[in-house]
Amino acid sequence: VIVGITLTAGDIAERVGGKLVGDSAALISGVAKIEEAGSGDLTFVANPRYARYLAQTKAGAILVKPGHGGEHGTLIEVADPYAQFLRMLEVFHPRDVWIEAGVHPTAVIHPTASVAENVTVGAFGYVGARSRIGAGSVLYPHVTIAADVVVGEQCEVHSFVSIRERVKVGNRVIVQDGAIIGTDGFGFVPDAGAYRKIPHMGTVTIGDDVEIGANTTIDRATLGETVIGAGTKLDNLIQIAHNVAVGKHTVIAAQTGVSGSSRIGDHCQIGGQVGIIGHLRLGDRVQIGAQSGVAGDVADGDIVSGSPARPHSLWKRIEVLVTRLPELVRRIRVLEAEVLGKKTNEKDAN
Amino acid sequence: VIVGITLTAGDIAERVGGKLVGDSAALISGVAKIEEAGSGDLTFVANPRYARYLAQTKAGAILVKPGHGGEHGTLIEVADPYAQFLRMLEVFHPRDVWIEAGVHPTAVIHPTASVAENVTVGAFGYVGARSRIGAGSVLYPHVTIAADVVVGEQCEVHSFVSIRERVKVGNRVIVQDGAIIGTDGFGFVPDAGAYRKIPHMGTVTIGDDVEIGANTTIDRATLGETVIGAGTKLDNLIQIAHNVAVGKHTVIAAQTGVSGSSRIGDHCQIGGQVGIIGHLRLGDRVQIGAQSGVAGDVADGDIVSGSPARPHSLWKRIEVLVTRLPELVRRIRVLEAEVLGKKTNEKDAN
Amino acid sequence: VIVGITLTAGDIAERVGGKLVGDSAALISGVAKIEEAGSGDLTFVANPRYARYLAQTKAGAILVKPGHGGEHGTLIEVADPYAQFLRMLEVFHPRDVWIEAGVHPTAVIHPTASVAENVTVGAFGYVGARSRIGAGSVLYPHVTIAADVVVGEQCEVHSFVSIRERVKVGNRVIVQDGAIIGTDGFGFVPDAGAYRKIPHMGTVTIGDDVEIGANTTIDRATLGETVIGAGTKLDNLIQIAHNVAVGKHTVIAAQTGVSGSSRIGDHCQIGGQVGIIGHLRLGDRVQIGAQSGVAGDVADGDIVSGSPARPHSLWKRIEVLVTRLPELVRRIRVLEAEVLGKKTNEKDAN
Repeated sequence: VIVGITLTAGDIAERVGGKLVGDSAALISGVAKIEEAGSGDLTFVANPRYARYLAQTKAGAILVKPGHGGEHGTLIEVADPYAQFLRMLEVFHPRDVWIEAGVHPTAVIHPTASVAENVTVGAFGYVGARSRIGAGSVLYPHVTIAADVVVGEQCEVHSFVSIRERVKVGNRVIVQDGAIIGTDGFGFVPDAGAYRKIPHMGTVTIGDDVEIGANTTIDRATLGETVIGAGTKLDNLIQIAHNVAVGKHTVIAAQTGVSGSSRIGDHCQIGGQVGIIGHLRLGDRVQIGAQSGVAGDVADGDIVSGSPARPHSLWKRIEVLVTRLPELVRRIRVLEAEVLGKKTNEKDAN
Repeated sequence: VIVGITLTAGDIAERVGGKLVGDSAALISGVAKIEEAGSGDLTFVANPRYARYLAQTKAGAILVKPGHGGEHGTLIEVADPYAQFLRMLEVFHPRDVWIEAGVHPTAVIHPTASVAENVTVGAFGYVGARSRIGAGSVLYPHVTIAADVVVGEQCEVHSFVSIRERVKVGNRVIVQDGAIIGTDGFGFVPDAGAYRKIPHMGTVTIGDDVEIGANTTIDRATLGETVIGAGTKLDNLIQIAHNVAVGKHTVIAAQTGVSGSSRIGDHCQIGGQVGIIGHLRLGDRVQIGAQSGVAGDVADGDIVSGSPARPHSLWKRIEVLVTRLPELVRRIRVLEAEVLGKKTNEKDAN
Repeated sequence: VIVGITLTAGDIAERVGGKLVGDSAALISGVAKIEEAGSGDLTFVANPRYARYLAQTKAGAILVKPGHGGEHGTLIEVADPYAQFLRMLEVFHPRDVWIEAGVHPTAVIHPTASVAENVTVGAFGYVGARSRIGAGSVLYPHVTIAADVVVGEQCEVHSFVSIRERVKVGNRVIVQDGAIIGTDGFGFVPDAGAYRKIPHMGTVTIGDDVEIGANTTIDRATLGETVIGAGTKLDNLIQIAHNVAVGKHTVIAAQTGVSGSSRIGDHCQIGGQVGIIGHLRLGDRVQIGAQSGVAGDVADGDIVSGSPARPHSLWKRIEVLVTRLPELVRRIRVLEAEVLGKKTNEKDAN
């Protein structure tokens, strides 16, 4: 449950480095969207589309760009209203750990495991042999930490997360519910009409400040390691295959899949439901449109779309022309009638 | 295990409001497909394709449309054989709760939580602070109900379901195994070369009579709530992003993803592996073909297909013409030879 | 933790039936990639691309094809270096069960369940009424085995796997973390503006030697059973709908979905993110390219790609022609100018 604090509009202006216009003594104890804000709420206008709400909002204080607030209520002028709103959101609603601190009596911590003193392990938590959980980390109920795992400091690991043997997780990593880190990769060799499993002796390394979405799966390497670089954010239901390396500060949207041994650079933006085949190299700052199928390397800074993926501008031209195919067929028919004396045939009528 | 009941064919005819032709005393104690039915089974023929089985089936009684049964065995004539078959299926095989009633001794119920008297909580169930579970609901083993959650009456929550803090679930909701409701949405703002997490203070509201498939993920709203309307059915491995609103009695097939803040109307039918980008408005009774990529608003009653999605009839025409591209190229070449005297060049040969 | 063994290069040559060239007494206690191997490691070169590492590797012994090793270090010549490397990998690193053998004291085994004597059930394991677990099987922490389930011998069932009521699992089956077997299929009939759930009385049968990937979902049949044939391998996040039958020794890559009642043959290879609509028949040895959308039956041995899927060679031609659409439009314009005296219009400029 959220225990609030109360600040004056003047306090807030000071914290965000803004200029206060209006009642500096107005008491603020929460944040809300401008359509829903009450007299005790801070709100913001960043997008001009929302300026129309300024006249009607009941908000106690409004973060706006300088000169964008009109005559309405108590304004706090800042260059970046949304970013400052988020900062204050964290002040009013600090991240809520919804279980009691400490190790729950039902949790099973292996005698050889090491759990830092201020770690929280929820009900039915399991920490396997020789694993280490760093200071300040919170494991919500029903987590499996296998053997020889390292989880860093200030991590947040939610229910039904499985972190398999020998996986290394950095600091301040958030793993949402149901994510699976370190299962065997999908590797088999044909053997007398059946398949023989390739043992997966490698592991997974997750960098600092990574977030991993709900029910996302990350396979361990055959040998060596699958890597998710520092600051990278993975959405829900993503598949990362064995021996993949994702760089730093890359964001990947939901339901995307990356096949084995592909490497993705830093600061990339990858849309949802994208498929990336195996053994590719994607550079830094690459952008990939949703539902694309990437079947070749992509150079630094390139933007690609479509399945198979092509340069984004070519893909857009092609999409327009595909929609115009019925018209192109008609134009070919007109030419044929003129040149070859051909009549429109039935087959062309669709 | 299923403990059966036994009815006569006459009893069944009465229950389904049908006309009995044959042996009204035939004893029926179960249901089966027509190919597999034995002498104690009720079966049905709805699709004429299956009428050929009438001559050979050993079924004790057969639900058929009036006049569609021929001379075979004991018939029960009804207007809607499949619907009546389903009704009788529920009579013979009532939904089986496969765990013992009551709260399992290993379950952890927070002292401030409230669990109605006839609720079942399976082994290793967790119900967090101030959460409430309504009468008649069944939580199978290994469920996490976080803090401040409300689960309505007569719900069925399966293993490894996580319902996160402050989520509200209606009555008669079924949540299949591994579904995750209320994780943080995928929202970050760029901040000095890295990403800063947008706190997700909102929640999720699930209406009455909703079913949520296995391993489906539903993110909480940034502010406000993500909504799944009453009677809506979500298949497995679906992604519903933050602040999405899905209407009532809408069905969404497996592996579809809906991006942030999009709104979907009532009575829609959305195929599998569909992607819907963010901030769209889809009307009521919209139909979307499997694997479509929806990148624009869709009006009430419209049918769209393809990626990017287009009106279904246009998409079908385009698909036909795309397949005919090799022929169109040949026709252009013929025209060029005639008009420009150009010869077929090698590049065109593929 | 891995407890190693040590062999001489001569021992290894004997085990793999190879010819030793070099120091037969070299001590080997592990395996590694050629770039990373140390003096105690066995490595291999199968792909000529890696031959360049031969000069620099510190590996104690190298599996190579006869005559492919040059003058470098200790070689073991075999016809199939990679397959023999995998065999030795299993020798040096036998599959590691990372929990203690036996039934963990926190596990809940129903009094009517039967667990063979050398079965391991990890912490918080649940085995329901009348279920049977075969000899040598390992259930990792946090597994739910519902009622009336049969799990065969030598199986490996990982954390957060749910095997629902009445499901039958063969021998030597591996189920990775979070996979769900036997949830209700997605079946509803319209009923007065709402949907009525179709009861799913059927079950799922999993053949011997199957592997099921992390967070994959397999629905139970309406009546009868959903079947995964012996030796078949399913990757992560796959959806198998009700009444589907997958044959033997078929491999399906991640995030693919198979809709209700479709049948897939033996020895098929299906790429990632493929969608297969319902009620189809796919023959044996079928190959399907990644991201394809299969909307019709596929004959034995056929190779299809694209969405909608077409014969692979046609699909490749079409993809080339789609990319050339801008050129085709230009050619039509040239013809129109010549024949009809038409000028390039603006609309065509894109």
